[in-house]
Amino acid sequence: MDRPATPTPFRNATEREQERATKRDAVLRAAVRMFNQRGYHTTSLDDVAASLGISKPLIYHYLGTKDQVLFECLRRGLDRLRQAAVEAAGLPGPGLERLKVFLRRYGEVIMDDFGRCVIRTGDEALAPESRARFRALKREIDQALRRFVQEAADDGSASISDVKLTSFAFVGALSWSARWQEPEGALAASEIAARIVDILIRGIEPQV
Amino acid sequence: MDRPATPTPFRNATEREQERATKRDAVLRAAVRMFNQRGYHTTSLDDVAASLGISKPLIYHYLGTKDQVLFECLRRGLDRLRQAAVEAAGLPGPGLERLKVFLRRYGEVIMDDFGRCVIRTGDEALAPESRARFRALKREIDQALRRFVQEAADDGSASISDVKLTSFAFVGALSWSARWQEPEGALAASEIAARIVDILIRGIEPQV
Repeated sequence: MDRPATPTPFRNATEREQERATKRDAVLRAAVRMFNQRGYHTTSLDDVAASLGISKPLIYHYLGTKDQVLFECLRRGLDRLRQAAVEAAGLPGPGLERLKVFLRRYGEVIMDDFGRCVIRTGDEALAPESRARFRALKREIDQALRRFVQEAADDGSASISDVKLTSFAFVGALSWSARWQEPEGALAASEIAARIVDILIRGIEPQV
Repeated sequence: MDRPATPTPFRNATEREQERATKRDAVLRAAVRMFNQRGYHTTSLDDVAASLGISKPLIYHYLGTKDQVLFECLRRGLDRLRQAAVEAAGLPGPGLERLKVFLRRYGEVIMDDFGRCVIRTGDEALAPESRARFRALKREIDQALRRFVQEAADDGSASISDVKLTSFAFVGALSWSARWQEPEGALAASEIAARIVDILIRGIEPQV
């Protein structure tokens, strides 16, 4: 029999794991917002702990050192970008459509907390081992974008002469929004992303 | 009579000022390269001094604190961008041509040492007072770009529906090159800048 027949004040393993995940999540959200607003180097784990009304050792308990907290924030941002690539790659239709969908989603993620951290906090901030892991994950995103651009060029749905530089230009145009866009700005992140993508795509539409 | 008729081992005021400027310049070049390569926070003035075979107090003597060294690096980068805006604004012809010239030069500066620092080192690194000065200088560049885009839209040499987002997208596409481009890469910075500008401009050329 898995659970006692009568109510108990003790949580079972699943409940404990869920509570742990919720607490890790709260710490990461508080940390990433401070990193984005004040900069990683000027934020201490004491500040993060104070904003949550907890102690720094509790952050160590749930997540580890400040470097590990940052790496986890960056990993979440990169995970969302990778997810965006997987979703776009599964769509039917011409390559240009998949590229558009990926770029829009890329822009949205990059203006959200964890995505913003990927752009705002340079990887020089990471310890060497975390930096190598971060760069490997980031390379996957760069390669995914390069593939979308290449496919749109190959199937003729876009007119692109330099796949590499087009990819860099597009990712830069979108990533820059993580620097200037304010979460409380007049336009929603999704609207900004859509408009920037329209500006970029117009330059590679086949000219009839 | 301004100068002694016979050779003298003592330098006059002009020579002393020139020597001082040359030394400040050498310190700034060494510092900016380290900031760009390792990151500002992980570089100490001791590292910069060691790379020049001098002592840290000599850096204080010529330039002041680490914050002041960074501010001076950033100011040089921004000066070059402002110079680019002044030069482009003085050119004849349609607005699109001035925009192209400015964007190309912007890309070149941003891939050079001091310009790269403007992009790589976020302004969170600066002390509050230097940060306010940096942001005021940076705003001038943003406004200059906005004007070039607006003028190209107004005189019909470009087809632009959203001046603000087009400006942000273009500056982002070029600024990103300060992150990925390597000074020893296969293509020269000027060639990369020219190609990215071609990609961007194609999207705003009036469609006939």
